[in-house]
Amino acid sequence: MKALTFRDSLKLVRDAPVPRRPGEALVQVICAGICNTDLEIVKGYAGFHGTLGHEFVGRVVESPDLSLVGHRVVGEINAGCGHCELCLDGDPRHCASRTVLGIKGRDGAFAEFLSLPVRNLIELPASVSDDAAVFVEPLAAAFNILEQVTIKSSHEVAVVGDGKLSQLIVLVMAQIGCSITVIGRHKEKLEMARRFGSYRVLLDAPGLGREWEGRFDVAIEATGSPAGLATALEIVKPGATVVLKSTHHGSTPLEMSQVVVNELTIVGSRCGRFRPAIDLLADGRLDLSPLISRRLPLAEGILAFEEAARSENMKVILQIG
Amino acid sequence: MKALTFRDSLKLVRDAPVPRRPGEALVQVICAGICNTDLEIVKGYAGFHGTLGHEFVGRVVESPDLSLVGHRVVGEINAGCGHCELCLDGDPRHCASRTVLGIKGRDGAFAEFLSLPVRNLIELPASVSDDAAVFVEPLAAAFNILEQVTIKSSHEVAVVGDGKLSQLIVLVMAQIGCSITVIGRHKEKLEMARRFGSYRVLLDAPGLGREWEGRFDVAIEATGSPAGLATALEIVKPGATVVLKSTHHGSTPLEMSQVVVNELTIVGSRCGRFRPAIDLLADGRLDLSPLISRRLPLAEGILAFEEAARSENMKVILQIG
Repeated sequence: MKALTFRDSLKLVRDAPVPRRPGEALVQVICAGICNTDLEIVKGYAGFHGTLGHEFVGRVVESPDLSLVGHRVVGEINAGCGHCELCLDGDPRHCASRTVLGIKGRDGAFAEFLSLPVRNLIELPASVSDDAAVFVEPLAAAFNILEQVTIKSSHEVAVVGDGKLSQLIVLVMAQIGCSITVIGRHKEKLEMARRFGSYRVLLDAPGLGREWEGRFDVAIEATGSPAGLATALEIVKPGATVVLKSTHHGSTPLEMSQVVVNELTIVGSRCGRFRPAIDLLADGRLDLSPLISRRLPLAEGILAFEEAARSENMKVILQIG
Repeated sequence: MKALTFRDSLKLVRDAPVPRRPGEALVQVICAGICNTDLEIVKGYAGFHGTLGHEFVGRVVESPDLSLVGHRVVGEINAGCGHCELCLDGDPRHCASRTVLGIKGRDGAFAEFLSLPVRNLIELPASVSDDAAVFVEPLAAAFNILEQVTIKSSHEVAVVGDGKLSQLIVLVMAQIGCSITVIGRHKEKLEMARRFGSYRVLLDAPGLGREWEGRFDVAIEATGSPAGLATALEIVKPGATVVLKSTHHGSTPLEMSQVVVNELTIVGSRCGRFRPAIDLLADGRLDLSPLISRRLPLAEGILAFEEAARSENMKVILQIG
C-alpha cells in the first residue's frame, strides 16, 4: 500500500506492508488531516519514525468484532497496554506503555490502511460528513480544556494563535458563552475566528502583550510556536490560568518568575475524549469547510506537507480512499 | 539610622532617614532573616533599589492605632492600595499598585526602623521567640501551597531543593501526613529534612530525574535555581502538579512539550497568610534553631549576605535591635 513515512526525511512509500496487528481492526482510510504535531515530528519532535498521521476517518475492513466491519469510524489515537491502573480506569491517554497513532510506536493514518484496537474505534453518525470527521480528534483536544479548567460564562478568555486548533477552541469556548478574544498574526484567520464566535480579535504586534497585560481570566496558548506562551503569561490576571496546547521541538526560554509572583497556573492539555466532539458535529449545523485550505491525494503527500506548513493555510486534507 | 541598601551594589548606609510614611506604623526591627529573594535582588531580580529585607520581627514604636505601640509584631509584606477590588476583598497580595517590603517600591527590614500599614502588622504571642518569628513570612509562603493545591495524605510529594524554604515546606507537608521525599545536593541539609519529617531523601545527581521519572503525585520546586523546575517536571506522574516557589533573575530554557504531553499543571506560589504560620509556631514545640546558620549585626550586613550565599549555610539572621 502507499504510505507517507518519516525517517530522517518524509517519503512516499509505494509498497508499505498493510499494518495488521494481532487482535486489532484494520481500517481503510478515507481521508486524513495534517496537524501541527505532524509538522513538528518532521522537525524532530517526539523522535518518531514511521507512517505519520493521526486525524482520520475510515471504514473498517477487518475486525475481531465483526459487527464493526463496513462501518465508518474515527479512532482515539492512544492505544494503552490494557492492563495498568490507568487503562483499567478506561483512560489510556497516559498509559506509560501506550502507543500513539502516527506519533509513538505505531504507524499512522497517512496510508491506505491503519490498524487500531477495536476499543479505540467509534462509529460515526451518518450526519457527520467525512470532512467534518477529520476534525473530531482536534475538536476533542479543544473540548479537553473544559475537563481540566473551569471556564465560566463571565470569564474573559484569550486564545493565543489563529490557526486551525485555535479556531476549534473558539468554537468550543463559544459553547460556554464566555467572552473570547483571539490574538493572531493573520487578518483572514482572525476574521474567521470572529465568524466562529470570537467577540474580539487582536492583530499580534510588538508591545501587544504589555498593552493587554493582566486583562484575561484564562489564556489558551495554541500558536504551535514557543513565543505564544510568553504572550499568554503576560496578558492574564494574577492568579489566572494559562492552558498550553502547543507541542514543539526544542526548549523555550521562559521567565518563570512571573509565574511565581503572579501565582499563575499553567495547565498542559493534549488529547480529549471523542464523544463530546462527535456530539457537537452530529447535528450537522456546524460548517467546518472554511477550515480546509487544500485537499490533495496521498500520492502528493510531500506537497501536502509543504502546503500545511505555509502560514496562510489552515487544514490540509489528504484524500486517500 | 543604619540600613543595608541596594542600588547597583549592596551598601551599609549609616545615615539613612527613619522611614515615616503617613498613616503607617513605625517599627523598630529586632532581627531579620536573609532570604533567597534578597540574594536574587542583588543580582538584578525585580529591579528593586532601596533597603532590602522582608523577613523580620520588631516592636511598634509609633502608630496611628496607639494600642499597638510597644507590642512585638511581624508584618505581611504586601501593602495594597486599599481601594481596588482585590484590596477590598482583603487580599492585597496581587494589588496592581502594591508596594512590597524590601522588594517593590518600599524600603525593607534590614534597617533599624521600617514603616508598614497598621493592617499589615500582626501581634505575636509571647510563646513565639524572636528567632522563630523571623520564619513566619517564609513559613506562611510554605502554607500557601495548601491553599492552592489539594494535597492528600495518600500523596507521594517530592520537595526539590534542600534549602531553608524547602525545610519549612517539609514541616508544613508533614502536617498533612503525606509521604515526603526531599531531593537536594547537600548531605547535611538532607539529614535535617529527615528530622523535619521527610520520609525519604535523595542526593541529586545526573540521571536522578530519569531514575525517578513519573513517580510523584506532586513536586514542589524550591531550589531557588532554574534547574529545579526541569527536575520537578521529570519526576511527576502524568496529570500531576508541580508547585513553583523559586523566583530568580533571568529566563530558563524549558521543554514545555512534556507539560503538554503529560498534561502537567504548574502552579506559581508566592506569599501566604501569616496566621497559619503563627499558629503552628505558637505552641513553642517546633525548634527551628537548626535552620539558623549565622547571626551577625546589621553593621556586618555585607558579610551576612556573603554568608547567606554560601551553599552550606541555611538562614543568616541580622541581629538589629
